[in-house]
Amino acid sequence: MNNFVYYNPVKILFGAGQIEKISKEIPSEAKILMLYGGGSIKSNGVYDQVKIALEDFDLTEFGGIEPNPTYETLMEAVKIVNEKNIDFLLAVGGGSVIDGTKFVAAAAKYQGDDPWDLLSKGAKVKDAVSLATVLTLPATGSEVNGNSVISRKSTQEKLAFGHPRLFPVFSVLDPQVVASLPERQVRNGIVDAYIHVIEQYLTYPVHAELQDKWAESILTSLIEIGPEVLKSPDNYHHAANLMWLASMALGGIIKVGCPEDWSTHMIGHELTAMHGVDHALSLAIVLPGVMDEMREEKREKLLQYAERIWGIRAGDDDERIDEAIKQTNYFFQRLGMETRLSDHNIGHETIDEIQKRFESRPGFDALSETETLTPERVKRLLESRL
Amino acid sequence: MNNFVYYNPVKILFGAGQIEKISKEIPSEAKILMLYGGGSIKSNGVYDQVKIALEDFDLTEFGGIEPNPTYETLMEAVKIVNEKNIDFLLAVGGGSVIDGTKFVAAAAKYQGDDPWDLLSKGAKVKDAVSLATVLTLPATGSEVNGNSVISRKSTQEKLAFGHPRLFPVFSVLDPQVVASLPERQVRNGIVDAYIHVIEQYLTYPVHAELQDKWAESILTSLIEIGPEVLKSPDNYHHAANLMWLASMALGGIIKVGCPEDWSTHMIGHELTAMHGVDHALSLAIVLPGVMDEMREEKREKLLQYAERIWGIRAGDDDERIDEAIKQTNYFFQRLGMETRLSDHNIGHETIDEIQKRFESRPGFDALSETETLTPERVKRLLESRL
Repeated sequence: MNNFVYYNPVKILFGAGQIEKISKEIPSEAKILMLYGGGSIKSNGVYDQVKIALEDFDLTEFGGIEPNPTYETLMEAVKIVNEKNIDFLLAVGGGSVIDGTKFVAAAAKYQGDDPWDLLSKGAKVKDAVSLATVLTLPATGSEVNGNSVISRKSTQEKLAFGHPRLFPVFSVLDPQVVASLPERQVRNGIVDAYIHVIEQYLTYPVHAELQDKWAESILTSLIEIGPEVLKSPDNYHHAANLMWLASMALGGIIKVGCPEDWSTHMIGHELTAMHGVDHALSLAIVLPGVMDEMREEKREKLLQYAERIWGIRAGDDDERIDEAIKQTNYFFQRLGMETRLSDHNIGHETIDEIQKRFESRPGFDALSETETLTPERVKRLLESRL
Repeated sequence: MNNFVYYNPVKILFGAGQIEKISKEIPSEAKILMLYGGGSIKSNGVYDQVKIALEDFDLTEFGGIEPNPTYETLMEAVKIVNEKNIDFLLAVGGGSVIDGTKFVAAAAKYQGDDPWDLLSKGAKVKDAVSLATVLTLPATGSEVNGNSVISRKSTQEKLAFGHPRLFPVFSVLDPQVVASLPERQVRNGIVDAYIHVIEQYLTYPVHAELQDKWAESILTSLIEIGPEVLKSPDNYHHAANLMWLASMALGGIIKVGCPEDWSTHMIGHELTAMHGVDHALSLAIVLPGVMDEMREEKREKLLQYAERIWGIRAGDDDERIDEAIKQTNYFFQRLGMETRLSDHNIGHETIDEIQKRFESRPGFDALSETETLTPERVKRLLESRL
């Protein structure tokens, strides 16, 4: 097990009816900006619940944060924060709204010229406005960590940043919201959580017995519960399990002392940035290619994954790995995803562009936990996904 | 899954060599009291490492905290804290030193007549001195929670209290310390962690799929790794796994949304208070009796435990439960524990006294998650352990 530092101070309020308690978690003098997305919170009742809970506060609203939240939109919110001296941000939404709120929190206190430098140049977060979340979509885990991914329309880029100052002070996880979600969002959430775990698990073994088992527990539970939630989204127990699984997938506890990969995310982000492919779908397209291309580096863990997740014990090493990749792909397809690039009219031109971008962007010339996934290999694995 | 609030802000510094980093985690103006136990930290090098790390601080020492730390000893430390205006406590030791330090932290700021009221009368913690820990013994999990158990010599009592203000600011977990521990302490640590998980797991099912699997992961890992650590205490990987398992057993994450029991602890504490039985040993003596006596209330979870932990699939329900209890007891015995009361010269007199105490002490007349374990049933289950 590698040395590590673990710290996660997010207070989680989990369960039906928890929204009404948020007024006790926010300083009574706070000037709050409530951020949300396209308005689904107005039809599922969450908006009204939050407004009632916060009726005694100085509350401003900022709606319209889009999926894959953009720098362009978020800078408008930053302006409001500074004009109105907002000192508390409440994200009410899914991963996009929460990620966007984290950017607003950091950008409003940023001292340099352009807050985009936080993403493109790795400029350090030195201060941030306090933030909290009311989660409406189990998927990204953004409600329990300090990380964020932001897109920029003008340059078709999608980049990540993070800082401990960006942990939510609290997050409300009320599983009742799942019943009102479109099937596509639930499916995306299941796959997103699954691949978050894979990125932290499918590397090389470091004698981290509990971390492996905890990661495997999330994977097997998602395989069991995912289809049940899609079938019966109004079953509270299934929804509660999915919501907790998605949070724990990216809360940081399963990866302590372990190497991490994140290649699939880095590659998937490009598909989203260039073609607007849903985040989870982009990962489901890319992952089988990464597993195949990286089979030497990931051999031991791929075999452990094959046996412990899919019960594959027959055949030689490569046959078992092939079968595990196939089963993973089937799982995404059974949930209703089309996992080929050609299913989405993406071809060689995009692959060449991704290779070119990775060759020129600092830190992208050797991805993966072993820093062996070169732009040329990225091209090859994407071609296998055509 | 029941509604829950989860919050755990302890920063964990895990791995070889982490002690030297603690100076960066403590405010530079802090007046520190370093608390420790019987002096084993002076022979295993930890004392020297801490002293070097803190050479630039105003540092006072308080040694001599005993196993099952006593009110009498700890009140001497409280006096020093108040006399010297100490504002940071550093516990260097195992669960006893850490539990004791939490009492000192709360007692020094207690406004009532006698800080013992925090334990005996449930008086509320309103403030506490900041504290942190350097763990020297994987066992109690006290390094990652805000709970504490304190004994009082004059009344032969052993009672628990806790508060979020008593979370350590940080905890250093350096697995290298395991190599220097006496076999008895390692054995106790394995059993202590195992039964901590059991108290949070062996209740009744509430559709908490991940919590169940995560608890089961700790149990199976302790069964696998426990004997290995005893055989090779200088194997760093085994030691690291044991240390992380013991912390995660009582860090709070496996029990969210679930009922809890803690009967075995309540009963075991009496054996320690009256006869000085090691804490873990007291639990190993009591647990098989609780499992048997509570088999109706715990039936579903006992069957799940039998199958998932011990692979027991043959026989009818009661036969499978009997076998699971037997295997649990064998596990403790294989580690080297004698799990009968008579092995420790404890007889009917003690059992009668425990029944009497539970009948008269508020909150002890109906233990367990179902509040159905009466003093009379406690007597019966202890008699089965003679």
